Amino acid sequence: MDNKRDILALLRAVAAGDAAPEDALLELKQSPFEDLGYAKVDFHRPVRQGNCEVIYGAGKTPEQISGILSAMHERCCGNILVTRLDPAAAEKVGKTAVLDYSPTARLAVAWPRADTPALGHIVVASGGTSDMAVSEEAALTAEAMGNRVTRLYDVGVAGLHRLLSNLDVLMSARCVVAVAGMEGALASVVGGLVDCPVIAVPTSVGYGANFGGLSALLSMLNSCASGVSVVNIDNGFGAGYLASMINQMEGAQE
Amino acid sequence: MDNKRDILALLRAVAAGDAAPEDALLELKQSPFEDLGYAKVDFHRPVRQGNCEVIYGAGKTPEQISGILSAMHERCCGNILVTRLDPAAAEKVGKTAVLDYSPTARLAVAWPRADTPALGHIVVASGGTSDMAVSEEAALTAEAMGNRVTRLYDVGVAGLHRLLSNLDVLMSARCVVAVAGMEGALASVVGGLVDCPVIAVPTSVGYGANFGGLSALLSMLNSCASGVSVVNIDNGFGAGYLASMINQMEGAQE
Amino acid sequence: MDNKRDILALLRAVAAGDAAPEDALLELKQSPFEDLGYAKVDFHRPVRQGNCEVIYGAGKTPEQISGILSAMHERCCGNILVTRLDPAAAEKVGKTAVLDYSPTARLAVAWPRADTPALGHIVVASGGTSDMAVSEEAALTAEAMGNRVTRLYDVGVAGLHRLLSNLDVLMSARCVVAVAGMEGALASVVGGLVDCPVIAVPTSVGYGANFGGLSALLSMLNSCASGVSVVNIDNGFGAGYLASMINQMEGAQE
Amino acid sequence: MDNKRDILALLRAVAAGDAAPEDALLELKQSPFEDLGYAKVDFHRPVRQGNCEVIYGAGKTPEQISGILSAMHERCCGNILVTRLDPAAAEKVGKTAVLDYSPTARLAVAWPRADTPALGHIVVASGGTSDMAVSEEAALTAEAMGNRVTRLYDVGVAGLHRLLSNLDVLMSARCVVAVAGMEGALASVVGGLVDCPVIAVPTSVGYGANFGGLSALLSMLNSCASGVSVVNIDNGFGAGYLASMINQMEGAQE
Amino acid sequence: MDNKRDILALLRAVAAGDAAPEDALLELKQSPFEDLGYAKVDFHRPVRQGNCEVIYGAGKTPEQISGILSAMHERCCGNILVTRLDPAAAEKVGKTAVLDYSPTARLAVAWPRADTPALGHIVVASGGTSDMAVSEEAALTAEAMGNRVTRLYDVGVAGLHRLLSNLDVLMSARCVVAVAGMEGALASVVGGLVDCPVIAVPTSVGYGANFGGLSALLSMLNSCASGVSVVNIDNGFGAGYLASMINQMEGAQE
Amino acid sequence: MDNKRDILALLRAVAAGDAAPEDALLELKQSPFEDLGYAKVDFHRPVRQGNCEVIYGAGKTPEQISGILSAMHERCCGNILVTRLDPAAAEKVGKTAVLDYSPTARLAVAWPRADTPALGHIVVASGGTSDMAVSEEAALTAEAMGNRVTRLYDVGVAGLHRLLSNLDVLMSARCVVAVAGMEGALASVVGGLVDCPVIAVPTSVGYGANFGGLSALLSMLNSCASGVSVVNIDNGFGAGYLASMINQMEGAQE
Amino acid sequence: MDNKRDILALLRAVAAGDAAPEDALLELKQSPFEDLGYAKVDFHRPVRQGNCEVIYGAGKTPEQISGILSAMHERCCGNILVTRLDPAAAEKVGKTAVLDYSPTARLAVAWPRADTPALGHIVVASGGTSDMAVSEEAALTAEAMGNRVTRLYDVGVAGLHRLLSNLDVLMSARCVVAVAGMEGALASVVGGLVDCPVIAVPTSVGYGANFGGLSALLSMLNSCASGVSVVNIDNGFGAGYLASMINQMEGAQE
Amino acid sequence: MDNKRDILALLRAVAAGDAAPEDALLELKQSPFEDLGYAKVDFHRPVRQGNCEVIYGAGKTPEQISGILSAMHERCCGNILVTRLDPAAAEKVGKTAVLDYSPTARLAVAWPRADTPALGHIVVASGGTSDMAVSEEAALTAEAMGNRVTRLYDVGVAGLHRLLSNLDVLMSARCVVAVAGMEGALASVVGGLVDCPVIAVPTSVGYGANFGGLSALLSMLNSCASGVSVVNIDNGFGAGYLASMINQMEGAQE
Repeated sequence: MDNKRDILALLRAVAAGDAAPEDALLELKQSPFEDLGYAKVDFHRPVRQGNCEVIYGAGKTPEQISGILSAMHERCCGNILVTRLDPAAAEKVGKTAVLDYSPTARLAVAWPRADTPALGHIVVASGGTSDMAVSEEAALTAEAMGNRVTRLYDVGVAGLHRLLSNLDVLMSARCVVAVAGMEGALASVVGGLVDCPVIAVPTSVGYGANFGGLSALLSMLNSCASGVSVVNIDNGFGAGYLASMINQMEGAQE
Repeated sequence: MDNKRDILALLRAVAAGDAAPEDALLELKQSPFEDLGYAKVDFHRPVRQGNCEVIYGAGKTPEQISGILSAMHERCCGNILVTRLDPAAAEKVGKTAVLDYSPTARLAVAWPRADTPALGHIVVASGGTSDMAVSEEAALTAEAMGNRVTRLYDVGVAGLHRLLSNLDVLMSARCVVAVAGMEGALASVVGGLVDCPVIAVPTSVGYGANFGGLSALLSMLNSCASGVSVVNIDNGFGAGYLASMINQMEGAQE
Repeated sequence: MDNKRDILALLRAVAAGDAAPEDALLELKQSPFEDLGYAKVDFHRPVRQGNCEVIYGAGKTPEQISGILSAMHERCCGNILVTRLDPAAAEKVGKTAVLDYSPTARLAVAWPRADTPALGHIVVASGGTSDMAVSEEAALTAEAMGNRVTRLYDVGVAGLHRLLSNLDVLMSARCVVAVAGMEGALASVVGGLVDCPVIAVPTSVGYGANFGGLSALLSMLNSCASGVSVVNIDNGFGAGYLASMINQMEGAQE
Repeated sequence: MDNKRDILALLRAVAAGDAAPEDALLELKQSPFEDLGYAKVDFHRPVRQGNCEVIYGAGKTPEQISGILSAMHERCCGNILVTRLDPAAAEKVGKTAVLDYSPTARLAVAWPRADTPALGHIVVASGGTSDMAVSEEAALTAEAMGNRVTRLYDVGVAGLHRLLSNLDVLMSARCVVAVAGMEGALASVVGGLVDCPVIAVPTSVGYGANFGGLSALLSMLNSCASGVSVVNIDNGFGAGYLASMINQMEGAQE
Repeated sequence: MDNKRDILALLRAVAAGDAAPEDALLELKQSPFEDLGYAKVDFHRPVRQGNCEVIYGAGKTPEQISGILSAMHERCCGNILVTRLDPAAAEKVGKTAVLDYSPTARLAVAWPRADTPALGHIVVASGGTSDMAVSEEAALTAEAMGNRVTRLYDVGVAGLHRLLSNLDVLMSARCVVAVAGMEGALASVVGGLVDCPVIAVPTSVGYGANFGGLSALLSMLNSCASGVSVVNIDNGFGAGYLASMINQMEGAQE
Repeated sequence: MDNKRDILALLRAVAAGDAAPEDALLELKQSPFEDLGYAKVDFHRPVRQGNCEVIYGAGKTPEQISGILSAMHERCCGNILVTRLDPAAAEKVGKTAVLDYSPTARLAVAWPRADTPALGHIVVASGGTSDMAVSEEAALTAEAMGNRVTRLYDVGVAGLHRLLSNLDVLMSARCVVAVAGMEGALASVVGGLVDCPVIAVPTSVGYGANFGGLSALLSMLNSCASGVSVVNIDNGFGAGYLASMINQMEGAQE
Repeated sequence: MDNKRDILALLRAVAAGDAAPEDALLELKQSPFEDLGYAKVDFHRPVRQGNCEVIYGAGKTPEQISGILSAMHERCCGNILVTRLDPAAAEKVGKTAVLDYSPTARLAVAWPRADTPALGHIVVASGGTSDMAVSEEAALTAEAMGNRVTRLYDVGVAGLHRLLSNLDVLMSARCVVAVAGMEGALASVVGGLVDCPVIAVPTSVGYGANFGGLSALLSMLNSCASGVSVVNIDNGFGAGYLASMINQMEGAQE
Repeated sequence: MDNKRDILALLRAVAAGDAAPEDALLELKQSPFEDLGYAKVDFHRPVRQGNCEVIYGAGKTPEQISGILSAMHERCCGNILVTRLDPAAAEKVGKTAVLDYSPTARLAVAWPRADTPALGHIVVASGGTSDMAVSEEAALTAEAMGNRVTRLYDVGVAGLHRLLSNLDVLMSARCVVAVAGMEGALASVVGGLVDCPVIAVPTSVGYGANFGGLSALLSMLNSCASGVSVVNIDNGFGAGYLASMINQMEGAQE
């Protein structure tokens, strides 16, 4: 019901006598997802190139994840992302699904597609070695969705030459994901250097007045560089997904 | 010095004897901006279609703004944005520059270009009438930068049919700016309905536990819809600028 | 589109040939509200006993409020609430609408109905004289919506006998609105004394570690008395509206 | 002493010579609860249909809970709720009381009544699978108190069609409990769709800028939908209890 | 009803036939205060030496304050404190009551008693000249209640010798009120030097990370000196009142 | 050097030739404590009735605590309090000192004195069973310091009759310690009922918007009852110590 | 009494019979400051090169400031700083003292010394034009205390080349004061570029999630660059004072 | 590229034909660090007396730390600090590097130099025994960098004589590191006593309203003593490093 064209098509079918009004209402209500009791699995997203569905793993049992994956796999060709999946759960889920699992990013791709493309260019830059879990979540998400990704790790602003010596890589990106904890200054500095959208990901790396990532979050929200937007603390997946959306934009027309 | 190609060109000039090393260093240091004492005006951004420079008006005197505008105008053809400009200051600045000023958005375009294009499609949606100042800042910024903008105001989630009945407009956007105060739920709902990037702008509209926009900010950062990123509270300009960047992306290549 | 029965009726009309599919879609999109440009006025709420529509006055100009009121008045019989309306704006709006205005509560009832009933029993209790603005907003809202309201003001817990000596009034209520600033303890004490729902309204009255009402808000959310729920700081209207909903419940059936 | 009628009855007994003043005072002081040393067990709530007493399990030892349950069971016919009871404690308590225990909701009903009715209609809606613990606490509480409950889980606003396709269920409710973490937008959207009271329960589900449920809490408090009130983070019990109160309201009279 | 002895006396009167039960209930409800509509004036505090009643002036109109004062003055002999009274309001109230008003402390004593004693010894110490408003509120409150007060102003810890050179005064106190903004260290240092109770009053004096007094408040709550307790930010009255209570304690008996 | 009389005595000794200036300076520097390297043990507090020294156990190893206790025991007759001592540490420390240990309060009295008096009257009241650890820390501290203590546990305001039926006990106190988590309303209600100082102790008992005790802390700081002051969250020791100070005040003189 | 040498000298005088013990005690108590009633003026700081005393102007009346200045001027040769002095107050104070006043920095130097030196090298760098008030407070403070100061304004990290092109100035500093609002990244970037101490000053410049300077404060505290420390928000004076201390260090010896 | 002199030298080499432009660019990009994949090891800091490089151990695996250490050791002579290293990791790292490890400070010095000097004088003062971990991190860092360090532990302000009796030590320092948790008053008191820079380190020691060190942090930021600056909560390393910088300043010249 969230799609004008679908409603119009359905109404036309009713008008043509091809569908009874009661059946049409039923279809409106039931079609776009399957109800597993503990979850309503969503199939309304078109099965497009390098993009299927995503499962947020935290707070779900391995059994629930397996159930959702199975329901999806029956309708959806593959490349299903499972985020926030700890190794123990991954092992259990791996018994019912083909998983490509990264323990660093705690991310799995179920039934990975062999023919995933590597379009455009996304750069994932991070402030320090400790940000690697979040950075990899972003990078692997973007790769699974069909994007070419370059990793620039440990280029924090306290040693600016590490970042500046990679300016050519940065400037060739169509979208940059800037991952940083502590003071989160990386996003502003990168935002001032490039001309493409910068997605800032604050991480909870740090201690003391970091307050679980609040420091980097506020810093990034207040960035005085234009073109910078922010996702939730530690939300590497969200950044990778959005970067893919932006990188795969088709050219605009007047 | 923030551009590999410039450095390489300069080094080649030195190698060819066309430039003395000391002069090259001097050029590296002086060229990209002009120092007015109270400000270092930046000219390094290419003077491209619909995009020039931006002045953050808050905390600057009308005299300083006029000075910066004049320095820019000498080098830059026009369409210079001045944000956070109150009406009294706008009147003073208007005596030294041609201004197209919106009191609602507190935004001015100096020496507006007549031939600004209207590319692609950006939708600016807002939760309520009270969010209009921020929404207009976003919409006018995007228009000044050469984008086609559709406004969908007062479509907050407490009256969902107002939003749903505009689904066709929403779904034709290349990028949506979702402006909302109070609980900020608009961003999540829109994010679940469209397939393009959504830039969420929390506003400080509200009272009580709104805490100056914190409520909407946190809500938007925690959006469970994919493709949503957030800019600072009341930062309509930042959202419009980023939306323009995304809307004007050229098609990617493998 | 937010009502199953409406969709079904429309589909049946299409099926019967009484409506073309394109027109049906158009109707789905346009009927439930009127677009004034700066606002989308909502008429979908049934015009029931003592209940019409509400305008949140803050952040709207008197002209906008007058415009919305006029659009409503044409379709809706009266008793329209306007909240957060300061005296100056009330005077301007009063030139285009019949207003019953309370400067204490900053609340107006436009085209008040003479036959508003006084159903059931709602008690509005407040901690101190300083909470009167919020208390009156709650009480007047409930009265405009057709409820009988008893005011128990200045019965804060630091002088418990003032509250206890009104136990008979409290215990005859079908719903209690407890308004308090500072430590907000009134909600818990009342919640422990009565058997009906208690709606707690924290106020921003106080100073220092009150932090704009945060103190009372947290206190009320942590109430160890059952049956207590909380609305936003200073949200007298919301409490009065909800109290009316609860007070006017019809008896349940198995 | 919290009941006018009791005081009046006692005073009359004294006046009639049926009670000595000293004894009356003693009775006022001792009757309504039993002192176990570590707890003062409360028996003043009338033993009505489907409603007895509740024990907040957190911070109490299994022995203390068993002791309180025994004291209650002697006076009270059953259906005693124990909240926040972890499985290990439930097993110990289960040796001295008949328990109907839900490990998901960490909730037990002691000496459950076979004849609990299922009155009216309460809908418990939740944003995601991860909110199930809190949702079940609300649903089971309401059921133990004699209400008919329908569960609508995993209907978060990022996939709006899942919610919209259940509009008929939502609109048949006398009271809705809306449980959501992350951005908590479910409460506002539901509040805009239904005409009955909505009790919003923020959950601590999420990460990063969720700040232990603060994000959903603020979002819900700032809901722009009327008829919404909020209980403490993760307080499923409180929501279920209040929903029962509202659902079981008798019809009002003028 | 908050006094066992009163209830017992009343019950005895009923038993003796001196009072009808209905009248007794009425008396229980009405006697201890007078209801002015906007306020319930409390007369239950015994009219003891140097201690009458207090009116919190903020949020009340001059007319309301005058009304409450008049009601009090009829029953109470004088020395009534009015706190948070700004000069304009004081002038108006002064037309209906004899006021001893301090603009620095924004405090008035209505109908001041000539024979107020000066018992024991309270020291009011403050960190800086800027804390004088709060310090004077504490000192004048204590004096009006019959205590001898010594002021030690501007003895902040950054110039420790100023405090140390007044050790003899400090050590002769029966109770110390320590008033400080900024880092609030005065309370800890004083607490380590004296053997009597120290009442810490954080003030909102400061800027930046002071956050309206939060800095001093937290500092004082975390004092590692024993014997220190804290009142609300800027609550000079509360500190003076409590200091008077402590100073006027009679000797204990085993 | 923190005692005027000591300095004067020392100066007189120097003047009399009984002490060399250099030795006097040395004595000023060394006498009042013993340096154990990891701690500077303080002996300057007079060894008075029921009052010796206190060791804050958290963050110290059992060996450090034993060392400090031994150093104290050599100079000080006994009754040394050790707070925040977990059972495992208590067992180790118990091998080198005679300990009277309460696992509930995590408090030990080392070398307890048999002749500790029970002066005056302190009431420790708590909101619920879950507050017992903090309440006992306060009660045991006060008892070890020579005070008579009455415990009123589980008298939270949600069941007001439990508190009111103990009014005679409350009103006989010279000082009340009010311990409560969640909404912390107990302090205000007690403060309105008694005429003696009330020391409020917020506890971290609760969940959700309790935020580790912040809710109760703010509530207590904002108490509208006079005579209430607050100590740190869970600081039962501090409250007991201060209550002892107040309870043992000698009568004041004019 | 805060100086070992003074105590020793005094003790020797007593021993030599040159001073009576009582007089010595008196001297200990009275000498280092003068008590004006509302302030205790401090003269204990040695009157050294370019360094006298400082008056924090906020919260003091012009009369109080004039009084303190006069008391100081009698003992102290000049160059007295008055901070946070608004123009109206400066005009009043200027009638009783020779003032060199900067309205931008709201800072005055009373009786400025003509022979103030310009030692070493301090760089004051700021992120934007809007930070000028705080930057100038730092720079003027340092200059009044005898330091050579270079201003590098508007070198924020969003335009990194503005900063990099001034590397030679930065690297010649003995101490850098980095002033920035918004995201505060300047401190980290500068800290990574220079080898000398960096004093970071967060400013309250910005809006929204800046939260009055909290964003820049947390960012600077979490700086991953070594050698960076932080002063209070907007505390330009504190930074200038500390920079002077560091810049004027004499060489260390082994 | 962060060094003007290096750029100039390189340009001269190119001009002299000693370097090709392309090679020069390559050198600019690669020389100052080595890329290990997970980290970019930085060698640009001059290998000076007692100062090499620092590894932040938290969030890195023992293998990563060993790898970075090996890369450094090949180029750098020794004395490499590893902070936040827990004992288990230290044992593993110790197999591939010579480590001088302090379990209290969780700090290691790899390949410690035998000839580290002990220049100047730094005093590390702490409030209590519980602050020892942070204090030792500061002291050991400063010692490893070639400074003479005196430890003054357990000199909190609640027992002021402990601090005052060490005034001679304090006053002989060239820089003081003041480490304190709870109310953090030590920094202000020390700042008022000495004439050298004071680096304040808030610690997370405490409980309740300490909020993980926030209390001490705010207190220290608001210090009214001049010459005090603050580093992050628990950041002993940062304080020691900065203290070394300040202590080793060479004398300034006009």
